[in-house]
Amino acid sequence: MFTEQDARWMARALELARLGRFTTSPNPAVGAVLVQGTELVGEGYHRQAGGPHAEVFALCQAGSRALGATAYVTLEPCSHHGRTPPCAQGLIDAGVARVVAAMVDPNPQVAGRGLAMLREAGIEAEHGLMAAEAARLNTGFIHRMRTGRPHVTVKLASSLDGRTALANGQSKWITGPDARRDVHKHRALSCAVLSGADTVLADNASLNVRWTELPASLRGDYPQDRLRQPLRVIIDGQNRLTPDLALFSIPEPILLVRGGVSGGLPKWVEECVLPLSADGKVALGALLDELGRRQLNYLWVEAGARLGGALLTQGLVDELILYQAPKLMGSQARGLFELPCFDAMAQVPELQLSDCRRLGPDIKITAKVKN
Amino acid sequence: MFTEQDARWMARALELARLGRFTTSPNPAVGAVLVQGTELVGEGYHRQAGGPHAEVFALCQAGSRALGATAYVTLEPCSHHGRTPPCAQGLIDAGVARVVAAMVDPNPQVAGRGLAMLREAGIEAEHGLMAAEAARLNTGFIHRMRTGRPHVTVKLASSLDGRTALANGQSKWITGPDARRDVHKHRALSCAVLSGADTVLADNASLNVRWTELPASLRGDYPQDRLRQPLRVIIDGQNRLTPDLALFSIPEPILLVRGGVSGGLPKWVEECVLPLSADGKVALGALLDELGRRQLNYLWVEAGARLGGALLTQGLVDELILYQAPKLMGSQARGLFELPCFDAMAQVPELQLSDCRRLGPDIKITAKVKN
Repeated sequence: MFTEQDARWMARALELARLGRFTTSPNPAVGAVLVQGTELVGEGYHRQAGGPHAEVFALCQAGSRALGATAYVTLEPCSHHGRTPPCAQGLIDAGVARVVAAMVDPNPQVAGRGLAMLREAGIEAEHGLMAAEAARLNTGFIHRMRTGRPHVTVKLASSLDGRTALANGQSKWITGPDARRDVHKHRALSCAVLSGADTVLADNASLNVRWTELPASLRGDYPQDRLRQPLRVIIDGQNRLTPDLALFSIPEPILLVRGGVSGGLPKWVEECVLPLSADGKVALGALLDELGRRQLNYLWVEAGARLGGALLTQGLVDELILYQAPKLMGSQARGLFELPCFDAMAQVPELQLSDCRRLGPDIKITAKVKN
Repeated sequence: MFTEQDARWMARALELARLGRFTTSPNPAVGAVLVQGTELVGEGYHRQAGGPHAEVFALCQAGSRALGATAYVTLEPCSHHGRTPPCAQGLIDAGVARVVAAMVDPNPQVAGRGLAMLREAGIEAEHGLMAAEAARLNTGFIHRMRTGRPHVTVKLASSLDGRTALANGQSKWITGPDARRDVHKHRALSCAVLSGADTVLADNASLNVRWTELPASLRGDYPQDRLRQPLRVIIDGQNRLTPDLALFSIPEPILLVRGGVSGGLPKWVEECVLPLSADGKVALGALLDELGRRQLNYLWVEAGARLGGALLTQGLVDELILYQAPKLMGSQARGLFELPCFDAMAQVPELQLSDCRRLGPDIKITAKVKN
């Protein structure tokens, strides 16, 4: 169905799409390539919501050479008037002969209508080429379109024996600088960072992205002047956080989930009261619904054993990223996840390994949670 | 100093040496290749103590074509009369012109004397080609020659959060069949398996090598009729093990380290009383000395958090092999290592990662302990 040439051009479109991955949310990252015979005549990628879509850049570059060309797009061209006119119409108007999309857009406003529009205009429109790679680029967006909630990744750092801190709370530094830079990369890729008052108080953590702490290899793709801060979402059910904390000194949005509004915080802090669950805690499902309504695709959780355990027990974790340092802290040190006391191995939460690699002196494990 | 041809022949000698790795102890695994010009004229490897050395096989195969040949050996040829005559003399008698050894023999009875003998006979004798690879093949032997004790590897299996069993003790099966087959491989490669009465009683473990449970890929290198059982060493300070246990039903050597001799056990069980340390426990250093005296190169420890923790705390562990299953068992489940309560991260035992790989659904981590 698809040729080797098709795959080569789609690979280029995916490469372009990746360049937008830090900045397109709430939109998906998308790349497009226009090919006339064996010659590339236009290419582009989506940079940020409100800005032109990938197809617009490619069409603009191609000009009249788009006539009779093949368009390779990593996501089905849109069919609706959003902040920009529909790309399917743009491709029709330019006289493109064939469109290959890696995958259908999961957005219910599109969901096949873009490809249908193209076909009605007599354009050969196919999809399914390198679909898995394209989906991996937009896991969060696809997840939100399907569930109304962000994709949730819980990050933890521990010793080889699964300990996050000594009995006295000391934990600096378990993992090395490579792991810490990798955490910064994930923060930068996320739409929001979730943490709890315990963690903020213990480390006086800012939870922002510091550009100079990103891995050097990324800084080319993500120049400092394009830096976007993820929304910092902090659960503070007992209103324990005070305005003097480092967190509040950085003038970037914070959503503070509290038991009641207390005021007296900088203007970039939004206090928000959410329903409580039966045990008097913030209802985490309701929080994810709220974050979904705010169009956040990726939620990165940096929290302690209690919040991590609660999310996991309630089936709200999609992925776990665990940084393990080659250290042994012993059975008296603090554990990774507070979970109920299980009676049988069959009750234990199971994950599926997606990746396992060395990162400086440490190990990075990525696993999907089977919910 | 060494040519690409030299490296190619030494690689072949290392390949041959590996074939003996299950059966040569207490001797090291050694391979030898004889080359006349660019032609291989003889090769061989050491199979078992008391049997011919690698050089003997190679010389025998080469016959008169050994005259003027180059010999590649993974370990310096021996210079002393042991159970077999010295190989250095054999090479001299055959008229070999040049000998390349990967490394000098760490055995104090050899330690350079083999190479000296060759040089005195006018043979060009060099060493140091692929020395690291050669040393890796005989880590246990080298360690015993240097310290008088076996190389100690502690094996553990846990969840991602470092738990070995639920609070009620249930632990079957944390890891999958690939990990269990890999454990069998390590048992087969070891001279002795160490465990404690707790572990034997909890699982009614036999701790032997079952040939059918070895990875299929190994069975060619290690046919069933050559199977050797490692010595099973069990610490039973309180004489709790009874003759009806599965352990005792397998008629292969067991060394039972007890508080006192009780008798009534099958003839393949040796009871042994060792000095106690200040806290009334078996002195683990004295045990390793005893195992060294018995010429055991590799000790594989399958034990619980207490024995593992005691060995680690006393600086007696050389290597850790940890099988991690992608599961989360929670903070109430049992920990990996019982260690003292540390006050500062600087006190925590540090390891150095040597390998980290996926094994079926699980992860296998290999790390050296920095003692």
